[in-house]
Amino acid sequence: MSTLTPEILGELEHQAIELPSWAFGNSGTRFKVFSTPGTPRDPFEKIADAAQVNRYTHLSPTVALHIPWDKVDNYIRLRAYAEDLGVSLGTVNSNTFQDDDYKFGALTHEDAAVRRKAIDHHLECIEIMHQTGSRDLKIWLAEGSNYPGQADLRGRQDRLHESLSEIYAGLGDEQRLVLEYKFFEPAFYHTDVPDWGTSYVQVAALGDKAMVCLDTGHHAPGTNIEFIVMQLLRLGKLGSFDFNSRFYADDDLIVGAADPFQLFRILYEVIRGGGYANPDVAFMLDQCHNIEDKIPGQIRSVLNVQEMTARALSIDTEALAAAQKSGDVLGANAIFMDAFYTDVRPDLAAWRESRGLPADPMAAFAASGYLQRIAEERVGGVQAGWGA
Amino acid sequence: MSTLTPEILGELEHQAIELPSWAFGNSGTRFKVFSTPGTPRDPFEKIADAAQVNRYTHLSPTVALHIPWDKVDNYIRLRAYAEDLGVSLGTVNSNTFQDDDYKFGALTHEDAAVRRKAIDHHLECIEIMHQTGSRDLKIWLAEGSNYPGQADLRGRQDRLHESLSEIYAGLGDEQRLVLEYKFFEPAFYHTDVPDWGTSYVQVAALGDKAMVCLDTGHHAPGTNIEFIVMQLLRLGKLGSFDFNSRFYADDDLIVGAADPFQLFRILYEVIRGGGYANPDVAFMLDQCHNIEDKIPGQIRSVLNVQEMTARALSIDTEALAAAQKSGDVLGANAIFMDAFYTDVRPDLAAWRESRGLPADPMAAFAASGYLQRIAEERVGGVQAGWGA
Amino acid sequence: MSTLTPEILGELEHQAIELPSWAFGNSGTRFKVFSTPGTPRDPFEKIADAAQVNRYTHLSPTVALHIPWDKVDNYIRLRAYAEDLGVSLGTVNSNTFQDDDYKFGALTHEDAAVRRKAIDHHLECIEIMHQTGSRDLKIWLAEGSNYPGQADLRGRQDRLHESLSEIYAGLGDEQRLVLEYKFFEPAFYHTDVPDWGTSYVQVAALGDKAMVCLDTGHHAPGTNIEFIVMQLLRLGKLGSFDFNSRFYADDDLIVGAADPFQLFRILYEVIRGGGYANPDVAFMLDQCHNIEDKIPGQIRSVLNVQEMTARALSIDTEALAAAQKSGDVLGANAIFMDAFYTDVRPDLAAWRESRGLPADPMAAFAASGYLQRIAEERVGGVQAGWGA
Amino acid sequence: MSTLTPEILGELEHQAIELPSWAFGNSGTRFKVFSTPGTPRDPFEKIADAAQVNRYTHLSPTVALHIPWDKVDNYIRLRAYAEDLGVSLGTVNSNTFQDDDYKFGALTHEDAAVRRKAIDHHLECIEIMHQTGSRDLKIWLAEGSNYPGQADLRGRQDRLHESLSEIYAGLGDEQRLVLEYKFFEPAFYHTDVPDWGTSYVQVAALGDKAMVCLDTGHHAPGTNIEFIVMQLLRLGKLGSFDFNSRFYADDDLIVGAADPFQLFRILYEVIRGGGYANPDVAFMLDQCHNIEDKIPGQIRSVLNVQEMTARALSIDTEALAAAQKSGDVLGANAIFMDAFYTDVRPDLAAWRESRGLPADPMAAFAASGYLQRIAEERVGGVQAGWGA
Repeated sequence: MSTLTPEILGELEHQAIELPSWAFGNSGTRFKVFSTPGTPRDPFEKIADAAQVNRYTHLSPTVALHIPWDKVDNYIRLRAYAEDLGVSLGTVNSNTFQDDDYKFGALTHEDAAVRRKAIDHHLECIEIMHQTGSRDLKIWLAEGSNYPGQADLRGRQDRLHESLSEIYAGLGDEQRLVLEYKFFEPAFYHTDVPDWGTSYVQVAALGDKAMVCLDTGHHAPGTNIEFIVMQLLRLGKLGSFDFNSRFYADDDLIVGAADPFQLFRILYEVIRGGGYANPDVAFMLDQCHNIEDKIPGQIRSVLNVQEMTARALSIDTEALAAAQKSGDVLGANAIFMDAFYTDVRPDLAAWRESRGLPADPMAAFAASGYLQRIAEERVGGVQAGWGA
Repeated sequence: MSTLTPEILGELEHQAIELPSWAFGNSGTRFKVFSTPGTPRDPFEKIADAAQVNRYTHLSPTVALHIPWDKVDNYIRLRAYAEDLGVSLGTVNSNTFQDDDYKFGALTHEDAAVRRKAIDHHLECIEIMHQTGSRDLKIWLAEGSNYPGQADLRGRQDRLHESLSEIYAGLGDEQRLVLEYKFFEPAFYHTDVPDWGTSYVQVAALGDKAMVCLDTGHHAPGTNIEFIVMQLLRLGKLGSFDFNSRFYADDDLIVGAADPFQLFRILYEVIRGGGYANPDVAFMLDQCHNIEDKIPGQIRSVLNVQEMTARALSIDTEALAAAQKSGDVLGANAIFMDAFYTDVRPDLAAWRESRGLPADPMAAFAASGYLQRIAEERVGGVQAGWGA
Repeated sequence: MSTLTPEILGELEHQAIELPSWAFGNSGTRFKVFSTPGTPRDPFEKIADAAQVNRYTHLSPTVALHIPWDKVDNYIRLRAYAEDLGVSLGTVNSNTFQDDDYKFGALTHEDAAVRRKAIDHHLECIEIMHQTGSRDLKIWLAEGSNYPGQADLRGRQDRLHESLSEIYAGLGDEQRLVLEYKFFEPAFYHTDVPDWGTSYVQVAALGDKAMVCLDTGHHAPGTNIEFIVMQLLRLGKLGSFDFNSRFYADDDLIVGAADPFQLFRILYEVIRGGGYANPDVAFMLDQCHNIEDKIPGQIRSVLNVQEMTARALSIDTEALAAAQKSGDVLGANAIFMDAFYTDVRPDLAAWRESRGLPADPMAAFAASGYLQRIAEERVGGVQAGWGA
Repeated sequence: MSTLTPEILGELEHQAIELPSWAFGNSGTRFKVFSTPGTPRDPFEKIADAAQVNRYTHLSPTVALHIPWDKVDNYIRLRAYAEDLGVSLGTVNSNTFQDDDYKFGALTHEDAAVRRKAIDHHLECIEIMHQTGSRDLKIWLAEGSNYPGQADLRGRQDRLHESLSEIYAGLGDEQRLVLEYKFFEPAFYHTDVPDWGTSYVQVAALGDKAMVCLDTGHHAPGTNIEFIVMQLLRLGKLGSFDFNSRFYADDDLIVGAADPFQLFRILYEVIRGGGYANPDVAFMLDQCHNIEDKIPGQIRSVLNVQEMTARALSIDTEALAAAQKSGDVLGANAIFMDAFYTDVRPDLAAWRESRGLPADPMAAFAASGYLQRIAEERVGGVQAGWGA
């Protein structure tokens, strides 16, 4: 018996999940970054690895860059390299948290010279975007303070608006700015964009090309994330997702690994709110494969999103609406859970094969010998990580 | 050595903290409501008790009502009764969580008839406000769902907007609507106004007379509440506070009891953002004295707010700004903490006496024999609680 | 293709999940208890409702009692009544949180007379257990304090030991005491048995007949509950489960409703540690059906536990152990997730039918007209709730 | 008016707070480690800096070492160097989280060879302790897993016991093992010693020389830490504190900075339970000065502990016990809060001067020019951090 209708499979054709270049480099905790043989040494090798994920899944046609980690002399060459491998360059992520000047802030800093430097960095990113063909400039603001009294929260918020306004003014007509919020870390008392409300009021003050980025790992314990998805879609301000999962803080685990049912609920609200297969709402991964293999970690991740999207698309929305209207609590919940509990994997495997893809992308990649090959070939040099 | 300057004492003259009538009735948990002798049986007795708090502190000139708990035949008489006791009637709080019709929502309900009923209840509250002379209609929306799938989050949000719009249209020129948000409880999966962002976008869509109410106990674990205070003041949308404190969930303990330093930080941001002694930003208590005496519990609470306001007013803001500008983390924090650690109580006691108040309001009230008197006099009848 | 082997189905035959009598009465939050037609008015009617759950599932052969809520004149008659309906009386739950004397504690109270009363209540429970044929006396200690300084934490802990020792001494040879811990509520500053560690050290000091009760809703945010399951089984001290689920605090929702994957992980550790189908480890529900129908809510709950047990039993433990040993992070996780994602419901439906049970117990019960019948028949009297 | 009696000042004479050598090196988050001029390049320079803290406060006579970060060729020489500067070498901290072999565990690893290596590391630490004259071997077990299914929780717990037993057997007669627990990080699904209960059962299984280490930043949100202090003292198993403070996760901020009232409550329970000025209960700092100056950060920290200890010692314990016994909630809380709100700083300043110490150690250190001197002198070499 088939669980996925042709309509659902048709919807799944539109799914695209951007990969972060940095997921292919080494990452870790403040205590230790473990390295693995074969880890890319430069942006080209990262893109080569990312292309493997798309090759086996057709789910990840674009790769996000991080500047300066992915700085190259010639972005046109990088772009062509990517396209030869069947992928495009996507969102450009700025970085204002690793320069010594940014110790006490960047776009919010008390000192105009530091703000100038941080704004200029973003303008440089926009310049790169023109070369890479990227639409979105993603700003995660790792700014805040560690001790009460250390910083003037209000002044920083006002300065943030001014800095963002200047960056916004630099955007091309087809470009967007997406502003990410985060509950805490690396700052431990206050963060300048700690919640969706702050990101929303900041981007709303900029204009139509500014949107909110929702990272699924950046919330307080217990937060109902699908509610925020609903609200931002309702407000027309959900620009993109950074998918990952967490048990505690910003754990950056594989999406769907910690709470698959939460991912299901999020994807349901995306669909419910018109955010699915909507170019205005970008799906991206933002994860750290601290201890597991990176390329398979990314394959697993995009498959998790695909499988859960298939489940969410399977909800009998008419029956659900009827149960909701009639106050049938257990009935509505049962319709919802039925879709979650239905195993869509056999149908997806068959569908993949019908499209010339391996039924089991994880197994196919493992069998390809790619990991062994890069471990042998990529000898010498410095493995990529989060260092500048 | 005096720690509080005449300027600070002058600022303290303007402090007013509204008391909730329901704090004088019985309250408890879902497991048990303990009663005490002398508990009021009607709104008049609640106001009499509230007036005691103001008598010994001059800090609580108004009393908030809750409809229907405080319904009376003649609000003019209630108002006159209060004024005879030196207090006024303040904010009117609506109630859409105790009628069987509201089991699945009120202003957000799927059924237009239920929404009609809930809207009409608010219009009735506005009518009462005209009689009581109240400015603010406070709406705490105890609506949500317990199970994923049970409710259509998006539809409810839209209906909430429609319902609020109709209530807003009914406000008098000098009246306001304040919309309270709450993280969870009594609903356990989703709440329709769970965070400041949602309250903000809902009231912003209404107009200038709609504001956000911030209850200090209604946030996720770890939330930086003073940041929200800062942001709402910056946006011109902080309408009122519900003060209380918490260790876990919405514990409704005495303000300042669980984390006095947090109260200090909140009050600092109120002052920093121009929200202190600003009639647009109302200070209220919203607490439950489940096991402690109620009137002394309220006296303790307003004194806690006063003492912590005095500390926050004592911060050397010029030195603080200089330290902040120069990136002197420990220096800025030390200036901040110095004000927190300075004992303002002796100065406040002397100041109280200079204004004809008891140096120690707790002791003076205890010595008055009021609690014993009401225990003897209020015999028979039904003690007030949270029942309608 | 069948997913559940005969061995797994054989294991499932041993599953028994005790129902709480109070789940069939009304419950709610401190804000409102909604009532429904047909709610039981006495312990007999509660047992009749509980028997319905077992009739359609063969999963709940016993019913837990709560004293004094379920006090009757003749327990022998209650026991016979239950047995006529195919169920037995199970765990007896004591109550030391609803008497005015217990406002500041019961087994931990400063006053020996109050402790005496609380101990005697437990001895009375043991006496009832002899009549009902119950093995387990469950103690949930709703004791604590709301304000720092209010209580002497250490003295209370020592008095708790003394009180428990006296109760323990009163147990019959085949009887056990299980001590439940809870993070918070109804006390909001400290709780006398707030975590598994405290429950463990208290029962370890009593002897072999004292065990820990783990309520899945009684932990701090983010707690890894399956780790605690593992540890208590390792220590030989896991006496029983109170199953339910939560998004925020002690929400008491249907087990598996909030985080099905967590339930899967818990059940895996139960099996891994030898706690499944082990008479020493009792499975119970402890839930509140505040807004949904109660009997279907209980049927849904036992089915959730059964379905998730089937998934957990399906894990390929040999392959898992091999992947764990070899440090194959993604491989081990994939084996684990495969069992979680496999849809066991069709096999379970077929197996139910093979045993003379309805394939879909929810539908069969709905079709039975029982709810309509009790709504018509149970007219007059006072509906059961949490009042004494 | 003096607030601190001679008895209290006498008690304060016994206070000693061990400093961590690593607090003087660079630290940061996974995103960035900021460096500062003058940061020590070797263990000798760290000890020189630590000695400064003691010089201005007489509060920190010992310095904890971390192996291998503080490995030297000649520990006798390091010990003599410290003693020349007026301090001793204290607790030795092991490290089993930075070697590639420990990616999947150390003392709990599936592979006996890895466990052997980790055990041998601890035996080497014990050998070093004999040379440094240290009493305590502190084990923080940074072991766990990131994904459900990745690890066999139960097997790891059993192997942990075996490994610890072997280490315990290697202790000298006067030596102790203290086992630290931590809620999460660097592992994000499970941690092998996540809570006090696990640490307690592991050390209880070893013997009298094994104790629990309580790091104040290592708990779930909302955890009542003073309760754990009470319980561990009651069980005779509180071996040491790692002091720091947090708003979110393991923020490692200056002790008392995030929640001064919590520090007060903790110290009260230490005193209440006989843990103050008790050599069996070691006070240590474990903090990261990511953005603030390190030596002043440590001075501020020990002063915070001293000031809060003075407040906690000032509680009128007789009056408190009487209020507790009589159920006077507000009275007991008022006595408790009175001590917290009393400003002990003037008395402490005077007392310091009477002992030949600066009234204001922060100012005196700043005036000394030490920071400028080391910035000039410590040029070249590699600044110490968390790298091996």
